[in-house]
Amino acid sequence: MAKKVLITGFDPFGKDIVNPALEAVKKLEGKKFDDVEIVTQEVPTVFHTSIKVVTEAIEKHQPDVVICVGQAGGRTQITPERVAINVDDARIPDNQQNQPIDEAIVEDGPVAYWSTLPVKSMVHHLKEAGIPAAVSNSAGTFVCNHLFYGLMNYLEKNAPHIRGGFIHIPFIPEQTVDNNAPSLGLDTIVKGLEVAAVVAANEKEDIREVGGTIS
Amino acid sequence: MAKKVLITGFDPFGKDIVNPALEAVKKLEGKKFDDVEIVTQEVPTVFHTSIKVVTEAIEKHQPDVVICVGQAGGRTQITPERVAINVDDARIPDNQQNQPIDEAIVEDGPVAYWSTLPVKSMVHHLKEAGIPAAVSNSAGTFVCNHLFYGLMNYLEKNAPHIRGGFIHIPFIPEQTVDNNAPSLGLDTIVKGLEVAAVVAANEKEDIREVGGTIS
Amino acid sequence: MAKKVLITGFDPFGKDIVNPALEAVKKLEGKKFDDVEIVTQEVPTVFHTSIKVVTEAIEKHQPDVVICVGQAGGRTQITPERVAINVDDARIPDNQQNQPIDEAIVEDGPVAYWSTLPVKSMVHHLKEAGIPAAVSNSAGTFVCNHLFYGLMNYLEKNAPHIRGGFIHIPFIPEQTVDNNAPSLGLDTIVKGLEVAAVVAANEKEDIREVGGTIS
Amino acid sequence: MAKKVLITGFDPFGKDIVNPALEAVKKLEGKKFDDVEIVTQEVPTVFHTSIKVVTEAIEKHQPDVVICVGQAGGRTQITPERVAINVDDARIPDNQQNQPIDEAIVEDGPVAYWSTLPVKSMVHHLKEAGIPAAVSNSAGTFVCNHLFYGLMNYLEKNAPHIRGGFIHIPFIPEQTVDNNAPSLGLDTIVKGLEVAAVVAANEKEDIREVGGTIS
Repeated sequence: MAKKVLITGFDPFGKDIVNPALEAVKKLEGKKFDDVEIVTQEVPTVFHTSIKVVTEAIEKHQPDVVICVGQAGGRTQITPERVAINVDDARIPDNQQNQPIDEAIVEDGPVAYWSTLPVKSMVHHLKEAGIPAAVSNSAGTFVCNHLFYGLMNYLEKNAPHIRGGFIHIPFIPEQTVDNNAPSLGLDTIVKGLEVAAVVAANEKEDIREVGGTIS
Repeated sequence: MAKKVLITGFDPFGKDIVNPALEAVKKLEGKKFDDVEIVTQEVPTVFHTSIKVVTEAIEKHQPDVVICVGQAGGRTQITPERVAINVDDARIPDNQQNQPIDEAIVEDGPVAYWSTLPVKSMVHHLKEAGIPAAVSNSAGTFVCNHLFYGLMNYLEKNAPHIRGGFIHIPFIPEQTVDNNAPSLGLDTIVKGLEVAAVVAANEKEDIREVGGTIS
Repeated sequence: MAKKVLITGFDPFGKDIVNPALEAVKKLEGKKFDDVEIVTQEVPTVFHTSIKVVTEAIEKHQPDVVICVGQAGGRTQITPERVAINVDDARIPDNQQNQPIDEAIVEDGPVAYWSTLPVKSMVHHLKEAGIPAAVSNSAGTFVCNHLFYGLMNYLEKNAPHIRGGFIHIPFIPEQTVDNNAPSLGLDTIVKGLEVAAVVAANEKEDIREVGGTIS
Repeated sequence: MAKKVLITGFDPFGKDIVNPALEAVKKLEGKKFDDVEIVTQEVPTVFHTSIKVVTEAIEKHQPDVVICVGQAGGRTQITPERVAINVDDARIPDNQQNQPIDEAIVEDGPVAYWSTLPVKSMVHHLKEAGIPAAVSNSAGTFVCNHLFYGLMNYLEKNAPHIRGGFIHIPFIPEQTVDNNAPSLGLDTIVKGLEVAAVVAANEKEDIREVGGTIS
């Protein structure tokens, strides 16, 4: 039976006028790969509202897997995140001028949640496809980690059968013409998210593999 | 009344023949700063044994604060760690050839523990002293994170009145003559650990301050 | 009247099994852009032989412009080189096991030659096309700089009406799956070399523009 | 017979309020190491004036060796420069608001001058002393390269028996508390310049050694 994967992408934040996460997600809307169907959702880069938008999309689409996608400027690889932590600590305001400092995302929530995506297997298949990838051990403390934590908290309480997690992606070249930062082409990112979605929909258990992590 | 701070440092691992953590800790043994007394412990870079050595040192010294120190090659700053996660995922063997892959440190332990050191305040005072510093959100998945998690787990169960946490330090210059990696002088590191120890012994609560974190 | 641009690319060297310069050059063979015709030449990564192969290609094709292309692993941008220096200083052997240390390329040659390509204008147009680019002030001291110097020395003596120079390009993603180095997609590199070729064929003088250089 | 080494350091420029070159040079004033005597000169970070100040100091002190020292923010090592190029291309104004773009330093001067310091031997001895060091192939296109070129041009014409060259040094830790850039302690930099001065005064010829360069 076909599996449904919900992929979400943030709108641009800070000084950026595009967000590669959103650009990539737009290109994936409605795509089908063998038995995997992709649905997508644009997400505002706003604390709390982002969680609300994603949980509503989950209730609407009833997916088998949820993959939230965000930009990690400065990274060179596609990086599935291993763990979400229960803290907001923002160095810049979000898109509605919220800037929480060292606040819990969910009062009395656990310190952290693991991703329930098969992160090592996703990295393994991304590399086999010639796409730079690594498991990351920190999603930061801005809206990306916030949504990731909120997603895992929601799924634990309301839909533990749904797999969920977060993938950070690099800048695209258009964003780096003036700053010497690394980038990855949009086509490569789209292809990478497709690979990740198919792996997440089909692999029953994650693999144990040496390496494949950012140090 | 004088406060006692236990500072621990790992012996060298991998290709390195010195560990700046150990070199710094040796220079701090027995030092007193106003009302703060430093005691130290050398720790083997070995999974599980490292936790055992540190908990025995805690039982022996009965400190007010425990700060474990390890090397994070490639970093430019002194980085107090915010959170320890319950996973061992080693890219190289430890000093007794153990190389756990994606294993829990403590079965049925929580996903993560927060440091109970005042990490933002330590960074604030380090910077005031002219020493590069930032809060880090990932201690990795090797023996450093392992010991950090084991320490917090031990303190939670056995000595919740003792503050504990982990600080990563850069290479020292001697380690980087052939590799173009950043370094920080041993004197600066020793001074930084002294500042961190005094802050941890005396600050009742951490401050909330924008920034001061590695992105 | 149509202009002819000769673009050359090195074969793989060291541990790499592809060279993005060669891959890009293959895709440009025979292409025409308005009044610009591209011809190409594969070049062995070998001291002296590389110069011989390129000068023979110049004599055969009688181009208006010569652009030699090589890989600069670790860079994030397409980087036209400003200056070639008269020294070979190899950290690894070339593809025929030559490893000259601090030797002149041309005995009694000048210390350095400027590129005669419009490097600032190329960078300006690359950025306008959304492609990360910067002028570089060092082509290193391996076969890339060697060929660049040899090319400029040949053109000065034999064909001063022909414009010539060197462009370094980053790794492509396939080369970086295991090493966390930055990369740029092959399509972006090919598009960038096309832009550079058209600018080099048509711009009579270089522009003076602030910035656009690697620091 | 004692050798005299003139070491010069720039005053702060741009956003910086200290210049580690000047701080280091102050500590070296009047020092003697065996048969080597150090004299020093502060230099304004200003195009052309900097050359004038250094040539006047040469005429006053009549040294055997001249080593100009400047800051290269972002580097991790002490880097003797191999070559000076005949171009000013400033991304920020100097301390008197001059900002030349792609202008020759010396009209009709050669494209470049080699350093006449034994750069490989200096790097070799710096590493032996445990100090991170490498030969650099680009001094940039701001006032550092400008002074380096002006120095070599002056020495060629007026005092070819005097050795001269340029050494770039990293930030010191005080400059990096807010920016995650690498640094090197002032004591290490001072020790490194002392080693470099003694090597430059005593080694008759440079060595040929594999490696020791920034890629």
